[in-house]
Amino acid sequence: MNTAAEAPAGAGSTSAASVRAMAAEAKVASRELAPLAESRRNAVLEAMARAVEAAGEELLQANLQDVRAAEISGDLPPATTARLKLDAAKLREMAEQMRAVAQLTDPLGRVLDAVEMDDAPPQWTENVHRGPRGGGLRMQKVSVPLGVLAVIFEARPDAVTQIAALAMKSGNAVILKPGREVERTAAVLVRVLREALAREALSPAAISLVLGRESVVELLNLYGLVDMVIPRGSRELVEFVQANTRIPVLGHAEGVCHIYVDQAADESLALRVIDDAKTDYPAACNAVETVLVHRAIAAEFVPRLALQLREHSVKLYGDETVRMLARDFAIAPVEDWHTEYGELALSIGVVESMEAAMEHIHHYGSAHTEAIITDDLETAERFLREVDAASVMHNASTRFADGFRYGFGAEVGISTSKLHARGPVGLEGLTTYKYVVRGHGHLAGDYRGDKARAFTHKREAR
Amino acid sequence: MNTAAEAPAGAGSTSAASVRAMAAEAKVASRELAPLAESRRNAVLEAMARAVEAAGEELLQANLQDVRAAEISGDLPPATTARLKLDAAKLREMAEQMRAVAQLTDPLGRVLDAVEMDDAPPQWTENVHRGPRGGGLRMQKVSVPLGVLAVIFEARPDAVTQIAALAMKSGNAVILKPGREVERTAAVLVRVLREALAREALSPAAISLVLGRESVVELLNLYGLVDMVIPRGSRELVEFVQANTRIPVLGHAEGVCHIYVDQAADESLALRVIDDAKTDYPAACNAVETVLVHRAIAAEFVPRLALQLREHSVKLYGDETVRMLARDFAIAPVEDWHTEYGELALSIGVVESMEAAMEHIHHYGSAHTEAIITDDLETAERFLREVDAASVMHNASTRFADGFRYGFGAEVGISTSKLHARGPVGLEGLTTYKYVVRGHGHLAGDYRGDKARAFTHKREAR
Repeated sequence: MNTAAEAPAGAGSTSAASVRAMAAEAKVASRELAPLAESRRNAVLEAMARAVEAAGEELLQANLQDVRAAEISGDLPPATTARLKLDAAKLREMAEQMRAVAQLTDPLGRVLDAVEMDDAPPQWTENVHRGPRGGGLRMQKVSVPLGVLAVIFEARPDAVTQIAALAMKSGNAVILKPGREVERTAAVLVRVLREALAREALSPAAISLVLGRESVVELLNLYGLVDMVIPRGSRELVEFVQANTRIPVLGHAEGVCHIYVDQAADESLALRVIDDAKTDYPAACNAVETVLVHRAIAAEFVPRLALQLREHSVKLYGDETVRMLARDFAIAPVEDWHTEYGELALSIGVVESMEAAMEHIHHYGSAHTEAIITDDLETAERFLREVDAASVMHNASTRFADGFRYGFGAEVGISTSKLHARGPVGLEGLTTYKYVVRGHGHLAGDYRGDKARAFTHKREAR
Repeated sequence: MNTAAEAPAGAGSTSAASVRAMAAEAKVASRELAPLAESRRNAVLEAMARAVEAAGEELLQANLQDVRAAEISGDLPPATTARLKLDAAKLREMAEQMRAVAQLTDPLGRVLDAVEMDDAPPQWTENVHRGPRGGGLRMQKVSVPLGVLAVIFEARPDAVTQIAALAMKSGNAVILKPGREVERTAAVLVRVLREALAREALSPAAISLVLGRESVVELLNLYGLVDMVIPRGSRELVEFVQANTRIPVLGHAEGVCHIYVDQAADESLALRVIDDAKTDYPAACNAVETVLVHRAIAAEFVPRLALQLREHSVKLYGDETVRMLARDFAIAPVEDWHTEYGELALSIGVVESMEAAMEHIHHYGSAHTEAIITDDLETAERFLREVDAASVMHNASTRFADGFRYGFGAEVGISTSKLHARGPVGLEGLTTYKYVVRGHGHLAGDYRGDKARAFTHKREAR
């Protein structure tokens, strides 16, 4: 058991050597986790939920220290301090969330493909090797865990239990790097979770904690030991991680989302969807940042849009046409079309055509979520087909681009990468697959040359 | 049309500015390709096949120059020169291969998931928006192209047509960087393919050619423009690419594959499978490099194995036990268990148990392909479950780990990465997906708070 995982907060950074040793132990632990039956993994989640409930008093004490330190420093915005705070209700909720993860569909052992490569035993055996499997050669593609995850996250205690639960459910070991302000709470939580693992006769090294910014730098060096890094937090953090590691990164740096209002749009529908997409939760990455309006309806629509958004305190920026059409609203010029405001602010532009809108989107967008408002189905389908983004929407708010709303049960993160996982990522994003081939002494050499056997290559029911 | 794509061979390296400009044009071209119907993409492949056939004389002339230059320099091994050479039969084969790619199952537009998020229109519309789609909110996960591929490949003309065909079939633009020795042939081939694109009213920028090592360095800088790099060739090349780019890399650096011969193995089956896995094509990455034998059968089995492999000119290396058991064969000591011989050479070791074999495999293997030989099904299943590798095999030759043999139709490459694509990669590896959401003015805000609507989250038939 690595003592660094229980290092008291304020003890500074986990040393590079400790981080590496911890990752090596996590790798070994991940091999123990990977083949566990779903019932075993769910039992571990239940044990972890109970352990968190049982440690209530100690957790609240540690959390109180974190909260006081944050209040004294005065560095944190009130909303962040609120998220940092634990109470009895929040603890119950954290335990329940772990139980909810246990209820999710098992992401492991899914048969993603199955091919009969040959239906007969190899010639040399003269059929004597026809066993219980019928003597053929078969391939299955089966989902398996990634191995070791490293998750760098924000200052909230429930992130610890949520991430640990998703890791266990998907059979992965995990190294947690919490935000500085939550270190004391996180240290107690991780110790409690590790004790639960030990009671379930599993290696506690499957969950470990590292502290300090230097530990992040060392984590990013562990290509080959760490299989995926998940940075949760600021755009700066995500970009720093992406630029400084060879380990695959699951994260998104930005969400510059657009809504294009077509000439055939239902304008009242457009107004409602834009309002929702901007004001429902402006800090979210799937909030809209730019609205593009077709010139044919701009004179009518732009002033209505400006009026409605102003009523909802949205600061508006526009191109020249927009500023002229809605001159009563004294709209500021757009400074940079590539801006993610992340607050009640919006850029509005007028475009000549859907093609121009798509060009703007491909040029200034971040391929996160792009929507069209139109009653012309043909135009809608063309937009959905031709726009290159993780999520494309017709007559719906960009805010729907979310793992829970898509029905994944849990959202592991959002990816603006095109590889492995794109868009909202569920538990499936924490898995890979392996090809499992079962034969009866089959030789590759038999399938080439003059007397080559032919593969049957029959796709089998999964 | 970028003239660099037609640069005569020997004209040196494509300049960094040209490479970047070409990639930017390829990005634009990729947006034109992505939404093309399968029939259009297949027609392009047919046009390209015909163009290659029509350009036979010019291609053979250019190839002759390449071959002569290679012979004069004397740098190339005879096998490489043979692969460099074109003749009429080879040209026909190249055209037929492009037509065969057209016949493959379309990797695009596959509906990978489909969820009904809500079956009703939003409340505010009072059902007036029930349109042809029934008024609900639906999500589909649909396969789409990656965008722009950069492929760095070896000195063989058929690689040009094969890669171009796979790219077109999967709707991707491609930048080709051929081996130096095939530059003249590749330049003519790419010009011919671009002319075919233009005749099909598509941007020729969808296929382009860069020359020289510096162009590789510049390609690797184009994060954001190039969506995937595929290095085909030496381990050094793959490692150089992996270490020098933020662009996702599809490739494998090494294949240190093992066969574990269990105590319950059928020994004659083991002998045949090992022989096939080593001698069928020793240079392949799925050839076996190390055989691990359970101690309980070592005294009997190791001398038989040594005898058989020696008869097939395999140079043997062993641990102390193996060298003692097969002392008549004067087996050399193993220098490094992590060696990919890539030739008729093999390491043999004796292990105490399957656990010890798995530990050895996880420590020295490259997670490419690992096999067990046993008649004990329980042991076999445990090995298949617990060994972490892209392909795991029971009673079959490691040589089966191959896209064609798995029935993918085409092999794009082999990946030892766990992310995106693992193991043999078919056309699917050149795709990603996007989420397509179709609504009727649905607002995210309606689904939270006191009077929240509930998502139906019904998984729909694909």
